[in-house]
Amino acid sequence: MKIVLLGAGNVATHLGLRLLQTGADIRQVYSRTDLSAKELGRLLHVPHCSDTNLIDKTADIYIYTIKDSALSEVASKVQAPKAIHLHTAGSVSMNIFEGYANNYGVLYPLQTFSIAKPVDFSQIPLFLEGNNEYTISALTRLAEKLSSVHYFLSSEDRKKIHLSAVFACNFTNCMYQLAEEIVREAGVPFEVLLPLIWETADKVNYISPKEAQTGPAVRNDEQTMLTHINLLKDNENARNIYLTISEQIKELHKK
Amino acid sequence: MKIVLLGAGNVATHLGLRLLQTGADIRQVYSRTDLSAKELGRLLHVPHCSDTNLIDKTADIYIYTIKDSALSEVASKVQAPKAIHLHTAGSVSMNIFEGYANNYGVLYPLQTFSIAKPVDFSQIPLFLEGNNEYTISALTRLAEKLSSVHYFLSSEDRKKIHLSAVFACNFTNCMYQLAEEIVREAGVPFEVLLPLIWETADKVNYISPKEAQTGPAVRNDEQTMLTHINLLKDNENARNIYLTISEQIKELHKK
Repeated sequence: MKIVLLGAGNVATHLGLRLLQTGADIRQVYSRTDLSAKELGRLLHVPHCSDTNLIDKTADIYIYTIKDSALSEVASKVQAPKAIHLHTAGSVSMNIFEGYANNYGVLYPLQTFSIAKPVDFSQIPLFLEGNNEYTISALTRLAEKLSSVHYFLSSEDRKKIHLSAVFACNFTNCMYQLAEEIVREAGVPFEVLLPLIWETADKVNYISPKEAQTGPAVRNDEQTMLTHINLLKDNENARNIYLTISEQIKELHKK
Repeated sequence: MKIVLLGAGNVATHLGLRLLQTGADIRQVYSRTDLSAKELGRLLHVPHCSDTNLIDKTADIYIYTIKDSALSEVASKVQAPKAIHLHTAGSVSMNIFEGYANNYGVLYPLQTFSIAKPVDFSQIPLFLEGNNEYTISALTRLAEKLSSVHYFLSSEDRKKIHLSAVFACNFTNCMYQLAEEIVREAGVPFEVLLPLIWETADKVNYISPKEAQTGPAVRNDEQTMLTHINLLKDNENARNIYLTISEQIKELHKK
């Protein structure tokens, strides 16, 4: 199967490297930014282009890793109606390809990627969707090579997976940033939090988040919560977050 | 230095094991629950008691790992005025010992402990405070044996460290639990989130939380946020958290 990668960001980079690792036949990298296309093309040792007119029309699979809002525009320009068109977005319906392609679907990797940091792609859960038997069968073969974990899900259920990732990754990272601000106010570097952050993430490999919950909210320690709210008196946002999540913890542990 | 451990919970267990590892001379374990005292006494191979009248009065250091609200009561009963009295609480002032002891202070380990899960205590940051030179000097020697990371901080600054731990650990864990509920609604087990949780925690070893922030809020992707808020229409708590943290992320990245 000849593959064209559309996009040259974090997802394209890690997916491209994994595709090469599994022996896939990548024919071209496209990005509207010429420098990005060039850099990823060089990394993957494949040709690149930054003009939609120059996209190779002879591939079997087109994988779109571009931003959600650009998907339909680029899809309308690829013009390879017999090929399979896949996007990698969590919150975009498969049907975005309707009218532009006959065979289409989704390959959504549940991970946060940074350009410079290697990840073990073989462990990343892939959420798949295809509009017909031909696409589903090709997508299954592709996914099996890329990772040991894959699920076929509807667009609606995939949106839930994406939402859960916002909590588990984006919001968690915001908690780290708020924690960083507070330790710095005490004159201590962020690094003191790293063993705690690591242990918190590691624990849920062994026990459920519900069992792992500790802290003043779950034990209803009003005295400590009051101390904390006082410390946040000049930071309205952080205080609101403190109150809202503490309420949620109490609620989740009432059941 | 002869040590008595007061309390037999998670902190006492891990601190006790680390003390033994470093060759400390633990003389006794006290807990008001006889079974807990017995179990930890057996684990550490030291005598135990559950009656404050039976607490060994001849030790040099008493380490209180009991709950915040019981600290003054137990401190009033130990009656070893020449010894050093240390509590391990994040949000309790050192002065809780005033009137009960002449030499007192704090040894607060910044970590989340579970009974059954071993931790590398030598990497745990310890936050220290002592009321006089004698205590500070003994506390420094003790802390240096226990861990390679220790800071002397005021009670006020230690409360900030404790607050930061609520964000980095307790609230982060709540994010994991909310994420779990959402993936289960999509019919997928919690385990699919583990690589993402791990990567999110690992990333901040290399780049700051601010640089690591990804997701719809930081890129102001209104369309995706609207999709997510719709998915949370029947879950008011989670929706409030979504809105509050998304606002915070926008705010933190405006600066």
